Amino acid sequence: MIAPTAHATTPTDIDFWFDFASNYSHISVMRIERDAAKRGLGVIWKPFLLGPIFKSLGWNTSPFIVHKAMGAYMWKDMVRQCAKYGVPWRQPTAFPRLSVLPLRVALIGVDQPWIGDYCRRIMRRNFVDDQDIHTPQAVGQVLTDLGLPAGEIVALAQSEANKRRLRENTEAAQALGIFGAPTFFARGEMFWGNDRLDDALDFAAQPIFP
Amino acid sequence: MIAPTAHATTPTDIDFWFDFASNYSHISVMRIERDAAKRGLGVIWKPFLLGPIFKSLGWNTSPFIVHKAMGAYMWKDMVRQCAKYGVPWRQPTAFPRLSVLPLRVALIGVDQPWIGDYCRRIMRRNFVDDQDIHTPQAVGQVLTDLGLPAGEIVALAQSEANKRRLRENTEAAQALGIFGAPTFFARGEMFWGNDRLDDALDFAAQPIFP
Repeated sequence: MIAPTAHATTPTDIDFWFDFASNYSHISVMRIERDAAKRGLGVIWKPFLLGPIFKSLGWNTSPFIVHKAMGAYMWKDMVRQCAKYGVPWRQPTAFPRLSVLPLRVALIGVDQPWIGDYCRRIMRRNFVDDQDIHTPQAVGQVLTDLGLPAGEIVALAQSEANKRRLRENTEAAQALGIFGAPTFFARGEMFWGNDRLDDALDFAAQPIFP
Repeated sequence: MIAPTAHATTPTDIDFWFDFASNYSHISVMRIERDAAKRGLGVIWKPFLLGPIFKSLGWNTSPFIVHKAMGAYMWKDMVRQCAKYGVPWRQPTAFPRLSVLPLRVALIGVDQPWIGDYCRRIMRRNFVDDQDIHTPQAVGQVLTDLGLPAGEIVALAQSEANKRRLRENTEAAQALGIFGAPTFFARGEMFWGNDRLDDALDFAAQPIFP
């Protein structure tokens, strides 16, 4: 006979919407798997393009470029936030960097065991090593370093079907009411910004009937 | 003979830039004196008008009104954040509320012992009791409830010299690079948003030579 459990405590996974061009996504990419695992949660990686979202808000680039005072503050905030979360950081000389190709590759990897390592390495290139991330060479190097068949994956990433998938993910983000990155969904609730990642994880991990 | 101290540990006060129209300022107004006092810090109240700052960013009202998706999210976030900080909250039926007069009165009170209580009561009217805060009646009621000479203070607040002070505070905010509220300055460093209040207080309270 199986003893009944008093409380259902099944945690759900967390949806993680991110763009490699986004500096606050950098902090979340670096810590989300570790902090989710602590609560017994998995991460559903949701790569999307911030550009079309920002365009719909009236900005033709990052708000940190559009609004200079906001940008000046953000670079100082990043130094302090990365120190706080123990995430490596160097202010890049180019911002925001083109991220379409690495995002397309991330879509190929979303259900693969290498997705987390891949995302962290792309972010490290952008926001620690201060290198471009949008060329086939850049992305290929990261895949090769992970022991993966770079040429094959990049070709798959550049297929029409996969390009469409990235557009669809971006449209899905917009339909969900996403207006920035990183954004998390936990049990259907939206949480915006790395500042809310812990709240989102706690919300996802709570017992259903506490 | 006076024994030399090994470390200077004098904490500084924290500058608190806020507008009564700002919902995230509500959370900070409600908790800043308590959380500053825990660290032996005082609060320097800096009332200013967000409107002219937003105008310079290209918005003719709150970004939460300009950007509908952002606004929809903000109301959900406020419920969760207020619960987290133990701050009372009801979504107001009017937003953002006119705040010029209560800010002018706050300027009269910045060096008075009643400033904290006054600010919390104005915020409570706006974001808990869902009442207007911009009429002489509204502000007068709050002052009277505090046992203060309402007529005298409101007259002083409406003087040309004091109106100019509020404009000057707003210009000073802009010159400091402030682009939103609440904003804090600790040891000359800027911290934006209620999310950074604890970081700002910790930064202000740290020993100078640790």
